[in-house]
Amino acid sequence: MNAYPILETIASPADVKALDEAALPLLAQEVRRKLLETVSKNGGHLASNLGAVELTIALHRVFDSPRDQIVFDVGHQCYTHKLLTGRYARFDSLRCAGGLSGFCRPNESEHDVFFSGHSSTSVSAGLGLATAKKLNKDEAYVISVVGDGSFTGGMVYEALNNGGRSGTKHILVLNDNKMSISENVGALAKYLAVIRSTPQYYTFKASTERTLRKIPSVGQALVHKLYDLKTQVKNKLYAQSNFFEDLGYRYMGPIDGHRIDILCDALQAAKRVNGPVLLHVITEKGKGYSLAENDPSSFHGVAGFDVSTGASDGQAAHFSDVFGAWLAEKAKTQPRLCAVTAAMGLPTRLTAFKQAFPARFFDVGIAEEHAVTFCGGLAKNGMLPVFAVYSTFLQRCYDQLVHDVALQNVHAVFAVDRAGFVGEDGETHQGLMDVSFLSSIPHFKIYAPCDFAALTRDLDRAVQTDCCPVAVRYPRGGQNEQTAKLRGERFEFSLYGDETSETVLVTYGRISGEAVAAADALAHSASPILVLSLNQIKPLPEDALALMQKAKRVFFFEEGLRTGGAGEQTGAALLERGFSGRFVLTAVEDRFVPQASVTEQLARFRLDKAGMIATIQEKM
Amino acid sequence: MNAYPILETIASPADVKALDEAALPLLAQEVRRKLLETVSKNGGHLASNLGAVELTIALHRVFDSPRDQIVFDVGHQCYTHKLLTGRYARFDSLRCAGGLSGFCRPNESEHDVFFSGHSSTSVSAGLGLATAKKLNKDEAYVISVVGDGSFTGGMVYEALNNGGRSGTKHILVLNDNKMSISENVGALAKYLAVIRSTPQYYTFKASTERTLRKIPSVGQALVHKLYDLKTQVKNKLYAQSNFFEDLGYRYMGPIDGHRIDILCDALQAAKRVNGPVLLHVITEKGKGYSLAENDPSSFHGVAGFDVSTGASDGQAAHFSDVFGAWLAEKAKTQPRLCAVTAAMGLPTRLTAFKQAFPARFFDVGIAEEHAVTFCGGLAKNGMLPVFAVYSTFLQRCYDQLVHDVALQNVHAVFAVDRAGFVGEDGETHQGLMDVSFLSSIPHFKIYAPCDFAALTRDLDRAVQTDCCPVAVRYPRGGQNEQTAKLRGERFEFSLYGDETSETVLVTYGRISGEAVAAADALAHSASPILVLSLNQIKPLPEDALALMQKAKRVFFFEEGLRTGGAGEQTGAALLERGFSGRFVLTAVEDRFVPQASVTEQLARFRLDKAGMIATIQEKM
Repeated sequence: MNAYPILETIASPADVKALDEAALPLLAQEVRRKLLETVSKNGGHLASNLGAVELTIALHRVFDSPRDQIVFDVGHQCYTHKLLTGRYARFDSLRCAGGLSGFCRPNESEHDVFFSGHSSTSVSAGLGLATAKKLNKDEAYVISVVGDGSFTGGMVYEALNNGGRSGTKHILVLNDNKMSISENVGALAKYLAVIRSTPQYYTFKASTERTLRKIPSVGQALVHKLYDLKTQVKNKLYAQSNFFEDLGYRYMGPIDGHRIDILCDALQAAKRVNGPVLLHVITEKGKGYSLAENDPSSFHGVAGFDVSTGASDGQAAHFSDVFGAWLAEKAKTQPRLCAVTAAMGLPTRLTAFKQAFPARFFDVGIAEEHAVTFCGGLAKNGMLPVFAVYSTFLQRCYDQLVHDVALQNVHAVFAVDRAGFVGEDGETHQGLMDVSFLSSIPHFKIYAPCDFAALTRDLDRAVQTDCCPVAVRYPRGGQNEQTAKLRGERFEFSLYGDETSETVLVTYGRISGEAVAAADALAHSASPILVLSLNQIKPLPEDALALMQKAKRVFFFEEGLRTGGAGEQTGAALLERGFSGRFVLTAVEDRFVPQASVTEQLARFRLDKAGMIATIQEKM
Repeated sequence: MNAYPILETIASPADVKALDEAALPLLAQEVRRKLLETVSKNGGHLASNLGAVELTIALHRVFDSPRDQIVFDVGHQCYTHKLLTGRYARFDSLRCAGGLSGFCRPNESEHDVFFSGHSSTSVSAGLGLATAKKLNKDEAYVISVVGDGSFTGGMVYEALNNGGRSGTKHILVLNDNKMSISENVGALAKYLAVIRSTPQYYTFKASTERTLRKIPSVGQALVHKLYDLKTQVKNKLYAQSNFFEDLGYRYMGPIDGHRIDILCDALQAAKRVNGPVLLHVITEKGKGYSLAENDPSSFHGVAGFDVSTGASDGQAAHFSDVFGAWLAEKAKTQPRLCAVTAAMGLPTRLTAFKQAFPARFFDVGIAEEHAVTFCGGLAKNGMLPVFAVYSTFLQRCYDQLVHDVALQNVHAVFAVDRAGFVGEDGETHQGLMDVSFLSSIPHFKIYAPCDFAALTRDLDRAVQTDCCPVAVRYPRGGQNEQTAKLRGERFEFSLYGDETSETVLVTYGRISGEAVAAADALAHSASPILVLSLNQIKPLPEDALALMQKAKRVFFFEEGLRTGGAGEQTGAALLERGFSGRFVLTAVEDRFVPQASVTEQLARFRLDKAGMIATIQEKM
């Protein structure tokens, strides 16, 4: 029995082009089954990929990748693209160590043009690619595929403002599924809803064109004439009030994004426009899997689940859950507390807060920069904003943290989720830089709780005691129970072991549990070990430095980038204070970290118990 | 003789309100004279301030600051605001150490709501302020004053997308002077030109309203009715195709921004709109000073100049000039070279390149994020982009440097101008963070030339030898001739003094000249000094570390932030390599640095010759 008879024959986009038109809907069916099969096992982005199946098939029918370059925004809808560009056989390795990435990765295939993972970059990247082609007199096309959610990010407008006058053959496909990651927000979403409800002029046009083209040779010329005429009529009809036309893009649409025939016609028409064009495609997130259609937010990014019921494996509590519960509870007694999210309310666990305090809940769209400056304004007028954000996305608003929060010296709290290794999402999603870049910002405090109890205590301190910008960073996943052995008399750090030990193992965050386990394993060695878990990273606590100063050997383990991290800061501070013992820093050296499980990543960088033991034994 | 008879009577906005309407144009004249007098002596932003005189007077006639909050985008048009809010007497101290800031600074006056200096933040900040007011049931207004140039930055759209559905009383004044810092770019600029050419419906309406209001009591009620009616008519007339209305802002305009009467009427009308509103005001940059009107770009930000001729003092060559000349020359033989700027072509000295190679020149507007990702696309398809950008503005695209350049591992060059202290522009413009945040990005190289010759050599290397992302950072101003004494056999660093010295003075960039002078002054002390000037900061050259390792004392002087900087990296690296001598790091500790001359700033942080000598003598 062959489960995927068509899909198995697709070794490259040429095979997609060779298929009979009638086979395309069957191909789409097979792709959907394969997506469900794989994502239910490996986890990944489901709803967005199910929505882009027909669109991706049409793109590979009409365009000639890799000569024509398709740039997927974020890349969380590129699974079909992978299946059609020679990666079907390896698809079961999706998101595993050494396997296919869940995003576009140029070192994986020549059909993946641009690394991606963050939102709203593909229009700028596409415009750069198209401009280079123009300068090199290369006639091929560049197509950026962008979801409506990505349109809530300001970079898209910066790029449109340039693209609209660029004269490049840049084709922008707006994949409008009426959703960002959860419900879409903002004025543009309303506006798109208005457009969607207008008569589908283009659809009608396309059908006429198709009919005409069936008459060979004569038909083709007619189509061209008709197109020009129709375009003019269309513009007069309703595009005159069109936002995108105002920015210089020829607007086409909206069209049904699940009809491959219509999509192919529209893309062919877009090719013939001599200049930048925006094709507005309406799709349904989760299409073809009713559970996802009915609840696309929950099926945006998923862990493994049961296809028939949609149920995922029961999971233990995560740091995010603890944060979400704390915020909803605290807001009952703190009327100044506001929650801000950049389209991540569900995964950062703001749902309870949102339901209880809708007036103080702000989902600003995928607009981290605005989010931070908005927090600056809220705080300036007396509110206490908490921005819940993934570490990797906080990178996007570094200057706003500096200019609109730290410089204002307002009281605002940053709940930095997914800090440290994030596992299967790979390079673009690792939370390894926040300690470095936040440390460089004046006035900021940084806390790195080692477990749930510490998280709650740190958040309380951030809200009730501090009056400056504070970042509380915590990882994806759950706690390591070994941290219970740490003695926490002080807020700034906690200890495990004998304070007179000549060897100190310094670390912070969740791997403090690994450190405790390593110390236990080495308890009977010649030199007993004191574990020092930093809870406050910035400013570095002087008492902790004084403790290290008394030791002969300091081993610093950091689940983060070495450069600018807490380890380097500690090393320099120790040397300035006259420390002349051994200092060994284990951190992630100058590199990007590809996908694997968090456990595998900790092991690879010697940041788990075994790695700590090995490092200490080697250097003693 | 009293040069400013009206202005002298203005101690607060209440005094502006108390003036007879007929006196207002005279006040505007006095303000303009005062601006010219002060800026021609102290330097500063001229053209933008001359253009906003009437607008600012009208704002303080209609609104009640500080209860109503006026947020100036960038803040480079706030001089009139300062003159009208009790700071006339101190205005001669503008941009001097301890004097008035050239931007909005809350610690200077309660009328300065939000620190500013970077572009496109005021809509987000204003929306945050307005939202807090709404939550606190405070009926006062928040007004964001934004130039059309700032509208090329994506944050404005992120904010509009939220503001349009916020229900706040947020008033956005679009101060449209048809210019960014130099000519405005992009599709939106074209679009605004179209709007400007439409019949000035609002102006007509306002005049009618004024006439009616002169009939007391009855008039007022009539005005209200009329307004509602007229608004509806207006929307039907031409606002239906309006970009801003699509985003949910009530659009009013365009109106003449140099007619105080019209401005006041329009602002009064804006107050009565129950929701977010955008008032489109047309002004002329440099208004009232013909030299600036005719060449607003040159008079955007200026040093002191002669009012009658416009001529500034002859200045010695700057690092920027050397860069600009190098780029224009190099491009003759390197057809892949492209120049990218975010509205800073003139001050980063790209004019010669632009004239010679217009097809390879890209001014993207005030859109640093787009600029970097656009560079990523250009580089991916074989071009070699050089993004010329101020250090402080490069902060704005940290994630794009990570995600769209470093992760792609493309060859792109970043000419980081104004790195280090920048002097009179103060807190928001200091280039003190780039070494910290660039160091944390994998794959990047960082060069910090100490003088013009080194700058040219570093740029050559970045373009001809390297094939990764490279940042070449150089300061505002000219070179220190003392650097000529440094021996430059190696690319990575250069030396002055005896390599067997027990004391090494390590530094980089322009203050290497101060270090040489300090070493000369200490030549006859007990311990002679070796000066080591790092040209390559990342990766830290092992040979340089080895030289330090041999010494007994390392003094590191860094014109940049301490945390994550090259000094801290060096300290940690030395300790890890077993160094047990003295290590003294002098850098800018965790704080923002206010305005003063560069010379004063270097002295204050002990980074000039005298400070280095004092530090070394204290610690020996």
